[in-house]
Amino acid sequence: MQSEMRRIVLAKRPEGAPTAENFRLETVPMPKPGAGQVLVRILYLSLDPYMRGRMDDAKSYAPEVAIGAPMGGGCVAQVEVSNAPGFAPGDIVTGMMGWASHWIAEAEGLQKLDPDAAPVSTALGVLGMPGLTAWTGLNEYGRPKRGETLVVSAATGAVGSVVGQLGKIHGLRVVGVAGGAEKCAHAVDTLGLDTCIDHRAAADAGALREALAAACPDGVDIYFENVGGKTLEAVIPLMNVGGRIPVCGMIAWYNSGGPGAGAQEGGDRLPKLWRTILVNRLSVNGFIVFDHFHRYPAFAKEVGGHLRDGRITYREDVAEGLETAPEAFMAMLKGGNFGKQLVKVSEPS
Amino acid sequence: MQSEMRRIVLAKRPEGAPTAENFRLETVPMPKPGAGQVLVRILYLSLDPYMRGRMDDAKSYAPEVAIGAPMGGGCVAQVEVSNAPGFAPGDIVTGMMGWASHWIAEAEGLQKLDPDAAPVSTALGVLGMPGLTAWTGLNEYGRPKRGETLVVSAATGAVGSVVGQLGKIHGLRVVGVAGGAEKCAHAVDTLGLDTCIDHRAAADAGALREALAAACPDGVDIYFENVGGKTLEAVIPLMNVGGRIPVCGMIAWYNSGGPGAGAQEGGDRLPKLWRTILVNRLSVNGFIVFDHFHRYPAFAKEVGGHLRDGRITYREDVAEGLETAPEAFMAMLKGGNFGKQLVKVSEPS
Repeated sequence: MQSEMRRIVLAKRPEGAPTAENFRLETVPMPKPGAGQVLVRILYLSLDPYMRGRMDDAKSYAPEVAIGAPMGGGCVAQVEVSNAPGFAPGDIVTGMMGWASHWIAEAEGLQKLDPDAAPVSTALGVLGMPGLTAWTGLNEYGRPKRGETLVVSAATGAVGSVVGQLGKIHGLRVVGVAGGAEKCAHAVDTLGLDTCIDHRAAADAGALREALAAACPDGVDIYFENVGGKTLEAVIPLMNVGGRIPVCGMIAWYNSGGPGAGAQEGGDRLPKLWRTILVNRLSVNGFIVFDHFHRYPAFAKEVGGHLRDGRITYREDVAEGLETAPEAFMAMLKGGNFGKQLVKVSEPS
Repeated sequence: MQSEMRRIVLAKRPEGAPTAENFRLETVPMPKPGAGQVLVRILYLSLDPYMRGRMDDAKSYAPEVAIGAPMGGGCVAQVEVSNAPGFAPGDIVTGMMGWASHWIAEAEGLQKLDPDAAPVSTALGVLGMPGLTAWTGLNEYGRPKRGETLVVSAATGAVGSVVGQLGKIHGLRVVGVAGGAEKCAHAVDTLGLDTCIDHRAAADAGALREALAAACPDGVDIYFENVGGKTLEAVIPLMNVGGRIPVCGMIAWYNSGGPGAGAQEGGDRLPKLWRTILVNRLSVNGFIVFDHFHRYPAFAKEVGGHLRDGRITYREDVAEGLETAPEAFMAMLKGGNFGKQLVKVSEPS
């Protein structure tokens, strides 16, 4: 047993995009688990866009990280010391932990994983929170009907890639939006989307709208929103009467500061959005996966089945070593990842 | 039988707020009803905010009025000549007609009214489209639960006044927003709202938000949206997790021109709205009463009962004479009316 562990703490709150100075790698004494707790060694750390919100002290759906506290996050880990019934050294578990080499976890917040059922890293991606987010958002708030058109932004990301593939299974025309030709090719060739628009090739929201309009000759019935920004602006005028917009994320705006930030030369886009919501009777629903964990068994049964049958595939972008987490996180916020972003912290024993 | 009739046509499309030159009063030969049609003399013409949208050639939920064509609108009228079974001279009817002294109406689009059941003008207000709008929007998209807080804008208007009173019947705390001390007093003293904020007394959205925050100590669960503008901006930060926003209208923005119009010094308010929708899991639903006419019988039974029992009251603002319609309409768009805006075109015989 090592006597020390490493962790990455929030050194200071970011203004705009995070930089290296917002994080600090620390070495601290190895903690000991209390009753009902386990000490785990972390194998995989999940990096997710929502973590950007937790770095601010503004109200968000998850409490903010305190200055000097470790960054939190979903992990897959291996039990080293157990003070909890039902957990033994060597067990592979998943749960909310943090950016660290080791963690003291409450046993009641952990789920055991069967390494023979699926690669354990999928518990952080297609069979984990991102997959549940995709499944819940599309089914509950997208309400897909065969033959409709779905646009999904961040189409090759951890959530978007599941949304698009589920959309095809539902019999929808699925149009992805992604950043770069390589991701767009992956969306069509591997994920099976009908087409994918490269938002980086579009000079502005107008050009993006034209490309989307050409790809959606019957308009857009469902826009699965992961990004905000110019993609949202481009899609709004294409929404059909009765359209649905599940609002899952808005990564394009996560690095915006206060209300004054995000101002555009084009002026205030709120009236135009509001008018479209009214005239086209849109249903816009924000949702957070934390409210839907009770649906996990139904999700895991359905999507786990698709995964085994090869109807759903996934891709991971794995950074090696805890110390790479800040850099990988900053890159992800700019769309630098290709697939579910993970950090491999250690090997299972 | 007169040989001529009067009507008001759209002379030119408005840019921004309509002015007198957008309308033209014409005298034309009295038309004759064909088979299945009736000639009616109009008693009451309803003026409604949606008519502003029909003056533009931009896409809206109702087709635009052609240049030179009469302005359309809901009316109560009396049959003069009938070529349709089931309708006889003297019958009082309601349906979609227009800004005119007489109208040729398809019998199948008309409903007969019983003048003994309720004042016939209520077919254009509390027991008509505005009432159905209020009832549908609150029940279907507001999903009220006893003890919650409802904010309703345009609280003394044709729709808002019904929303607020139904909210009290549902056991909600109801906070109105209206323009001027007199309307606010009416909202509390006559409609029974818990309190009402005078948006004209608030210098800006910030001041309005402070007043609303004080009036809504438990936050806002339902915002029934009739106006857009600074009221929307003030309410957004007060929305509770799981809040609902039925979007019924946005009169503050109806006179805005194209996408460039409506720009605010405060910049783009879309990112802030989007963030609140996501973080607070809001459900925002645009809706149009035209989609919900099949619910009319259930509505009329419930709200008609409340009206007879005195649990719901209504107020009308009646302009006298067809020629006053443009002026009354322009004033209404600025909040100059107090209660449901009608034009009395003629007396029943």
